[in-house]
Amino acid sequence: MAKKPSIPKGTRDFGPSEMVGRDYIFDTIKDVFKHYGYQCIETPAMENLSTLLGKYGEEGDRLLFKVLNSGDAFSGIDFNEDLSSNAIALKVCEKGLRYDLTVPFARYVVQHQNELTFPFKRYQIQPVWRADRPQRGRYREFYQCDVDVIGSDSLLNELELVQIVEMVFNRLKVNVCIKINNRKILSGLAQICGHPDKLIDITVAIDKIDKIGIEAVEAELLERGLDREAIAVIKPVLLLEGTNSEKIERIAQILASSEIGMKGVEEIRTLFALIEGAGIGTNVELDLSLARGLNYYTGAIFEVKALDFEIGSICGGGRYDDLTGIFGLPNMSGVGISFGADRIYDVLKGLELFPADVASASVVLFSNMGEKEAAFCVPVAASLRRAGIACEIYPDNARLRKQFEYADKKGIPYLAIVGANEVAENSVTLKNLASGEQQLLKVSEIVEKLKSV
Amino acid sequence: MAKKPSIPKGTRDFGPSEMVGRDYIFDTIKDVFKHYGYQCIETPAMENLSTLLGKYGEEGDRLLFKVLNSGDAFSGIDFNEDLSSNAIALKVCEKGLRYDLTVPFARYVVQHQNELTFPFKRYQIQPVWRADRPQRGRYREFYQCDVDVIGSDSLLNELELVQIVEMVFNRLKVNVCIKINNRKILSGLAQICGHPDKLIDITVAIDKIDKIGIEAVEAELLERGLDREAIAVIKPVLLLEGTNSEKIERIAQILASSEIGMKGVEEIRTLFALIEGAGIGTNVELDLSLARGLNYYTGAIFEVKALDFEIGSICGGGRYDDLTGIFGLPNMSGVGISFGADRIYDVLKGLELFPADVASASVVLFSNMGEKEAAFCVPVAASLRRAGIACEIYPDNARLRKQFEYADKKGIPYLAIVGANEVAENSVTLKNLASGEQQLLKVSEIVEKLKSV
Repeated sequence: MAKKPSIPKGTRDFGPSEMVGRDYIFDTIKDVFKHYGYQCIETPAMENLSTLLGKYGEEGDRLLFKVLNSGDAFSGIDFNEDLSSNAIALKVCEKGLRYDLTVPFARYVVQHQNELTFPFKRYQIQPVWRADRPQRGRYREFYQCDVDVIGSDSLLNELELVQIVEMVFNRLKVNVCIKINNRKILSGLAQICGHPDKLIDITVAIDKIDKIGIEAVEAELLERGLDREAIAVIKPVLLLEGTNSEKIERIAQILASSEIGMKGVEEIRTLFALIEGAGIGTNVELDLSLARGLNYYTGAIFEVKALDFEIGSICGGGRYDDLTGIFGLPNMSGVGISFGADRIYDVLKGLELFPADVASASVVLFSNMGEKEAAFCVPVAASLRRAGIACEIYPDNARLRKQFEYADKKGIPYLAIVGANEVAENSVTLKNLASGEQQLLKVSEIVEKLKSV
Repeated sequence: MAKKPSIPKGTRDFGPSEMVGRDYIFDTIKDVFKHYGYQCIETPAMENLSTLLGKYGEEGDRLLFKVLNSGDAFSGIDFNEDLSSNAIALKVCEKGLRYDLTVPFARYVVQHQNELTFPFKRYQIQPVWRADRPQRGRYREFYQCDVDVIGSDSLLNELELVQIVEMVFNRLKVNVCIKINNRKILSGLAQICGHPDKLIDITVAIDKIDKIGIEAVEAELLERGLDREAIAVIKPVLLLEGTNSEKIERIAQILASSEIGMKGVEEIRTLFALIEGAGIGTNVELDLSLARGLNYYTGAIFEVKALDFEIGSICGGGRYDDLTGIFGLPNMSGVGISFGADRIYDVLKGLELFPADVASASVVLFSNMGEKEAAFCVPVAASLRRAGIACEIYPDNARLRKQFEYADKKGIPYLAIVGANEVAENSVTLKNLASGEQQLLKVSEIVEKLKSV
């Protein structure tokens, strides 16, 4: 094989420095989840196609990666039957790669319902796969990081998710704004503007307001079959200004005649009161144009934006009243959010917010100046590690310059030079590679010296 | 969908308690790897089939999970061409799921050779997929946990792997025996018994000695075309007893006339001297029957067994002299080992070695006795979390008995009961669920009280 090997388009390798950053993000998020009593689960990469198909719309079905049956997949297929490409695929593929973590979670809850304690609070951090056209920032394999509680319709759960978002981004030192809306308010709006059947059209259009502006949204609403009168009802809602309380009171007046709309207003009122009581310091904003284009939300809708960095939403979620119904377990209300690891990584990198000490390189590299000298270093290095100090012995007797470079490239701050003299004196010469300063230390002194670094 | 949903055979869901155990194992292993300067990488689940095919033998090719091309995979395929099932598969599948972490690692090293610092020390913990017939203890998706150093042929690397194994199992409190052999010794043995061409047959047969005994191995060697004279040379080697040094001296005599054999003896002699000098406390044994049935090892071969639990090897590896040659980068010697996470989990579970405190449940559950009472708990819970104490508020105003059960099932040791009285007195009643003891505490006292738990 002469050609340099490559990986499938839309997929990525993560090298050491990216992994350190990603682990920092995941570890921070996981630790916060645990503080709120969420438990980790993992599900298989492959699910039965019957579990996945029909859950993400037609477009989603098309974007599923299908896995060929093992063994003689094509035997018994009669190609003269004039089957469509899709029909063949379903005959030779019984499994697919998961497309998100939500459907596998629903499947998990139904399958294991008798083992679980409800309300069940779980988090899950695993890759998902989508056969999307790869482009900048859109990958065919990426991690999702979901936290959900299922089996409770209390708004305390919504509050908890707001608290979790705040704690995560406080720890990551990212300033964010949390936007909240409620699906029932949008339903109410569709009702009072006279187009209850056009809820999806309305949400799809208004969700774009940040990107395309109010005029373009109006045009799209017209195009989607709404009349001028309806738009005259919707537009002022999208343009509502003021504090959250002012917005709530205004929308309550507007939706007064819609039962579902007023239920949404009540939920929002309660949630914002809880948020107020919890002493949330993060900016939480009622955004009546927030729709996230998703059909399965039935209550709260969340979105989180970074304030100091230009990027799409870094976190989003909402409440869904009947997630597990599709698998035969009705009336399980759940609410959850998903952290966008790739975008959060870009934010931290862009704002230089990765702490310097997450590099997690070794503290010291023992030089290798020959077999005897290296053997001398072995127990010294072992004693450092027992004291919790990461270190390495350069494995080959290479030129010292090369060993220096190795330490430099890996970000190792100290070099322990051990030649014949040091061996004779049971000591090491410890060199600080940044300052150039060096010091002859007895072996018994080196642990103490490096512990204080 | 009336039928309870399921997952593909040979795959698994990991629930909260399994995940806690698995994380404990992976965190322990990762921390040890880092103490030795190994860095984490991740590669995509899907590799190009051209990367994977031909690397695992014919059987391996058959066991690859192939991923159907996205889009109209079957258009343009002329089924009248009378193609074999395999030939069709290769036309409609360009990608496959990784079968192990070694080939993706080799591909990674070649693809990123200009960005890497050699010797490159990496670890990688990710799932792999094999279309094997599922059976007890054999899965179609399982994690591998590999640590390798590439670009150095120093035996200090072999020593380091032995040290890593020792540190990992010391921390996990598992008593193990590390078995070591050297491929060159096996080559020498094939040479001096007069069958240098039968090295693979010999290794495959003698590798089974633990399972089938010496007589059956003899029978298999005969069957594989060795003669009685050859077996008379091999058998005493397999039965060698004594200390490691005694075995080394004996095998040195036997292999005296084989150049490659003596090279293996020299490597083993050096490695055991290094192990001696490093003060390894674990039982390390030269096992001349150890072959691991694998063709790509060229030097050291490792295997780790648990001493107090009946199970196959829990860790294994070896040196390979030309791993990246298949991808066009020759002469990169590497050595690595792989930890068997599933078996290690079984050992820890079987011997009850999971520490009690890894359960990582919340410390306290705040009862929910109504909206007002729950709202009162919100800032109290927030202050606990700020102090690093994991806690939950039961989200629904359910019967107290149900809330008790929730705490009990999740292993939460304390219940904080907050009714109207507690709210009036700005306090909580903290109940130890194990002892039944309860105590009325001021809100200001609860952090201190639970910090000391």
